[in-house]
Amino acid sequence: MAKTYVFGHKSPDTDTITSSIVMANLEVQLGNTEAKAYRLGNLNKETQYVLDYLDIEAPELLETIDDDANVILVDHNSPKESVENIENANIQKIVDHHKVAFNTSYPLYVRIEPVGCTQTILYKLYKENNVEITPKIAFLMLSAIISDTLLLKSPTTTPEDIQTVEELNELIKEDYQEYGLEMLKAGTDLSTFTIPEILKLDAKQIDLKDKKSIINQVNTASIDDVMQMKEELEDEIQKIIKDEELDLFMLLITDIINSNSQVIVLGEHADIVEKAYDVKLEDNTALLEGVVSRKKQVVPIMTKHA
Amino acid sequence: MAKTYVFGHKSPDTDTITSSIVMANLEVQLGNTEAKAYRLGNLNKETQYVLDYLDIEAPELLETIDDDANVILVDHNSPKESVENIENANIQKIVDHHKVAFNTSYPLYVRIEPVGCTQTILYKLYKENNVEITPKIAFLMLSAIISDTLLLKSPTTTPEDIQTVEELNELIKEDYQEYGLEMLKAGTDLSTFTIPEILKLDAKQIDLKDKKSIINQVNTASIDDVMQMKEELEDEIQKIIKDEELDLFMLLITDIINSNSQVIVLGEHADIVEKAYDVKLEDNTALLEGVVSRKKQVVPIMTKHA
Repeated sequence: MAKTYVFGHKSPDTDTITSSIVMANLEVQLGNTEAKAYRLGNLNKETQYVLDYLDIEAPELLETIDDDANVILVDHNSPKESVENIENANIQKIVDHHKVAFNTSYPLYVRIEPVGCTQTILYKLYKENNVEITPKIAFLMLSAIISDTLLLKSPTTTPEDIQTVEELNELIKEDYQEYGLEMLKAGTDLSTFTIPEILKLDAKQIDLKDKKSIINQVNTASIDDVMQMKEELEDEIQKIIKDEELDLFMLLITDIINSNSQVIVLGEHADIVEKAYDVKLEDNTALLEGVVSRKKQVVPIMTKHA
Repeated sequence: MAKTYVFGHKSPDTDTITSSIVMANLEVQLGNTEAKAYRLGNLNKETQYVLDYLDIEAPELLETIDDDANVILVDHNSPKESVENIENANIQKIVDHHKVAFNTSYPLYVRIEPVGCTQTILYKLYKENNVEITPKIAFLMLSAIISDTLLLKSPTTTPEDIQTVEELNELIKEDYQEYGLEMLKAGTDLSTFTIPEILKLDAKQIDLKDKKSIINQVNTASIDDVMQMKEELEDEIQKIIKDEELDLFMLLITDIINSNSQVIVLGEHADIVEKAYDVKLEDNTALLEGVVSRKKQVVPIMTKHA
């Protein structure tokens, strides 16, 4: 049987890594014994916490794939976010929860649903195929849903995500709330990163109409801790704006406990933020109350006002 | 509750029409009570036979849709094959078995599987959602699978299609083989069509690399009957080639009983057929033994030799 590479997006997060492992296991259980999970980059600290907690090894790093290799994509579908040479791969399946950003010249298995997390879909696939969800698999699924929905508090959360967490909670023998908060906190530890590294951790280039922009998000348990680095962050952001000829750089510092985001915004079009949220930037910064989701609460609103 | 338009592709066939009806019913059963099936063109005779047999009314004709209308696409996903103004619609779901040829700016429900017929997927959706498959719904599903797979003989047939037909057959009280053959034969009746109409019934513009081509398919229970019109068909094909500046026009006359296709091929690059199938065109025609599927046995092979 030919090997099948299962992987998520570049700059992997907890959903991408755990979904690769959980999907590869599903394939193996269903008879595709050569399916194996891979990752396209370094683990973040939150994901490392999850794998350490469960004593699971990280998937192997994958940098490129051969022509015609069999692949299964999870938690992404855009070629831009995928492995090098994906254009020449044989994509067998896609399981994802993002907008559709790919085309094929052949029919394939595509399962995309507008839910908060890929694992909510994988949970259904396990059920539909009568494959056992072991406590470890349940923990991986739960971790990803907690991560993507910030403990079910993000507006990306759907009733299906909540239902799935409730059902998964029956399968593990711990308080998922407490575990989840520790996991999220582990992901907010910035102490070992340099300023340039922090500004790359979860940076997405998202053009707001014709304005070339980067919107970056950093989770924290204390906005104050991050704001102590404000000057250094701004210096580095100015450099990035110059190097990449950006119109706007927006850094969201998201308080995962209280569900707010402090933003630092620089660039010629920083005023889009003021119009979008009806706030006044003082010293390049403002608090956006209740804003935690870049996908739902930032990109569409910023695009509208760009 | 806002209205939801459920429809398949232009030049509707039996899968497209029945899938619209079956999907709309699933939505209604699941609480989306304003879901309704539509069609984008006239019924072909095979589909008319099915609806007459079951005493079901044809879906209403839809020519365009309003901006932001809620739509569910079945049996297609390419905007080119969809309704006018689809770009501005709010696509809620897609259930299909073709290659992926669309993009969105938002996540949605996408269920595409590489099986022979959309109804094979809809059968699973009914099961997954515990929605009753009434005898009429079963008959609609069965009709489409028979149509798309030519009674399970086309190479597009998958084990899942076969399994689904077996399970559906339990739900109806008739011999599906006999019904299926009558249905397919009804679809081969060309007596009321003019020559130009015949050449448009199932014509797909498919560019073979840089060669502008039309590949048309007509099902028949008797190749001889259709070949009696050969001269008139060729005259009209020459006109189309001139008007549309084609490099190639290929007409497949497919014998649904014996699973062969006689082809009539005209245009400057007609020799592609000779290379692709290792045959000699005599008087612009040749018999391609065992060839019944345009998707699987014609387009990829013709493209390779173009």
